Amino acid sequence: MLYTDELREIIDREVEKMNFAGRRPAELYTPVNYILSNGGKRIRPVIALMACRVFSDDITHCLGPAMAIELFHNFTLLHDDIMDNADMRRGKLTVHKKWDEKTAILSGDAMVVLAFDLISSSRSDILKPILNIFNKTALQVCEGQQLDMNFEQLAEVDEPAYMEMIKLKTSVLIAAAMQIGALAGGATERQSELMYRSGLNMGLAFQLQDDLLDLYGNVEEFGKTSGGDIIMNKKTILLIRALEKADSQTAAQIKDLMENEKDPGKKVQEVKKVFTLLDIEKDIREKVSGYFKEALEVLDASGGNPERKKELAALVEKVAGRTS
Amino acid sequence: MLYTDELREIIDREVEKMNFAGRRPAELYTPVNYILSNGGKRIRPVIALMACRVFSDDITHCLGPAMAIELFHNFTLLHDDIMDNADMRRGKLTVHKKWDEKTAILSGDAMVVLAFDLISSSRSDILKPILNIFNKTALQVCEGQQLDMNFEQLAEVDEPAYMEMIKLKTSVLIAAAMQIGALAGGATERQSELMYRSGLNMGLAFQLQDDLLDLYGNVEEFGKTSGGDIIMNKKTILLIRALEKADSQTAAQIKDLMENEKDPGKKVQEVKKVFTLLDIEKDIREKVSGYFKEALEVLDASGGNPERKKELAALVEKVAGRTS
Repeated sequence: MLYTDELREIIDREVEKMNFAGRRPAELYTPVNYILSNGGKRIRPVIALMACRVFSDDITHCLGPAMAIELFHNFTLLHDDIMDNADMRRGKLTVHKKWDEKTAILSGDAMVVLAFDLISSSRSDILKPILNIFNKTALQVCEGQQLDMNFEQLAEVDEPAYMEMIKLKTSVLIAAAMQIGALAGGATERQSELMYRSGLNMGLAFQLQDDLLDLYGNVEEFGKTSGGDIIMNKKTILLIRALEKADSQTAAQIKDLMENEKDPGKKVQEVKKVFTLLDIEKDIREKVSGYFKEALEVLDASGGNPERKKELAALVEKVAGRTS
Repeated sequence: MLYTDELREIIDREVEKMNFAGRRPAELYTPVNYILSNGGKRIRPVIALMACRVFSDDITHCLGPAMAIELFHNFTLLHDDIMDNADMRRGKLTVHKKWDEKTAILSGDAMVVLAFDLISSSRSDILKPILNIFNKTALQVCEGQQLDMNFEQLAEVDEPAYMEMIKLKTSVLIAAAMQIGALAGGATERQSELMYRSGLNMGLAFQLQDDLLDLYGNVEEFGKTSGGDIIMNKKTILLIRALEKADSQTAAQIKDLMENEKDPGKKVQEVKKVFTLLDIEKDIREKVSGYFKEALEVLDASGGNPERKKELAALVEKVAGRTS
């Protein structure tokens, strides 16, 4: 994927140029630099640049908005890590653990302001639509995080509610990257809306794939302990689907394991056994494929350069881990 | 002050119209509604509306930006209260005490996004300059809060450093309210810059006055325990000036009281005695008057309707508590 690597390097250079390491007060900007240099894959800004390239060879006017999306994404990680009390992120200490909560709150606040500042650097004729998309999306991401936190307090979550949550928490930002990139590349309003819809489906596929990988992924490649979501009693699509499909006896067995099994290894193993009986992995792989297919069909209908769209599809395919 | 009361009521109605009480998820928006309905004086948006009225009878295009400033201000209060571990705000529990930290972080995040959304509602021809002022200001406010937190860790803070901190943490938002209001009212770039400069001086006067009132204010009217800043060892302009003026023996006495006097009442009384010997109250009152005078002179030079400027000056005079 030489092409996407090049785009990622462009984003890395833009991060460098913003010189957070040199800004004052250092106490505010050092954590910003830390999280932005933390080896993220830059999926969202790369998608924005690729979406721009579907409609134009010139990515100049997409760099600011693409960086805004990357900053906003990292701001959400920073604040979510406080709210989730997470110690590690991408193999390094989270900001609130390396420094403290105050620092993590305020540096995150500065990042969201910086994101809006970058959005404001958009070319005048497309500033208003880009700003509107970004505003709407940013608020939805906050709402999605709230729904996710609400789920922790609920005994059960159904599939529509879960899909709504991941749409808000994850997909809308991918969708916004697609739409904003397209607008920066000169797409029409209609084309940019199709790109948004395609991105929404991509985002759903990504998140469901993430749920799958937590249990069925190659541990080394994915870099997390297998079954971490089960250990943490997270209400993922796997668990929700399993509880939906299970008869009352099996459902009770799953709940008993989730609530009472104290040995993490055994807990994962036993829950996984029940998932296998219920064919959950296959179900969710099909669901991922469905969203992925929809994403590609809408992308296909959105106009622009077909070769560039193929490259975009290839990236999405790689991220969504689709092999067939 | 019938006139400013009317403007405050307009802002109150705008807050009502945003219907945070009815928005979902309720867990996200109820705290937003709580802090915004918490009896704030709406100084900043009222100043924005008054600045607009200096240049135009029509405040329609100023309502969105004025509300944005009010939301951003309340967002900073919400997050600062977490960072300062404050229990009470305007006589009510702070959001992170009434709910929890997660809620306070996320509701604050939503408020800053909502603020940018309101800024984006500005009339197209003035959107870009208003957005630029707001972006710059919002980042400066974060920087000011960081400097304020840094000061807690420092043994001593000098007066220029303190003035820089309160400029960033407090004054720039008042200045932005003046400039954005003026632009919304059709002021020229030059006029709006003078309004900004006037607002910067107002903000410095307000903050220094706040430091004064903490020790010398009428407790009932001001609603705080007298001398709270001394009890909390806060590095206010009073303490900084006192340490600057004091001979080494007196300075040592002040530091000893600050560090070692455990009885709060006695601590305030004794420090106040030293301040009286050093004539600190008079010094700082003069400093406030100086900034206030500068604010009015620059306001005078900024063009627009002289009657409306008188009303604006009267409000500022009231807030800055200037009696001569």
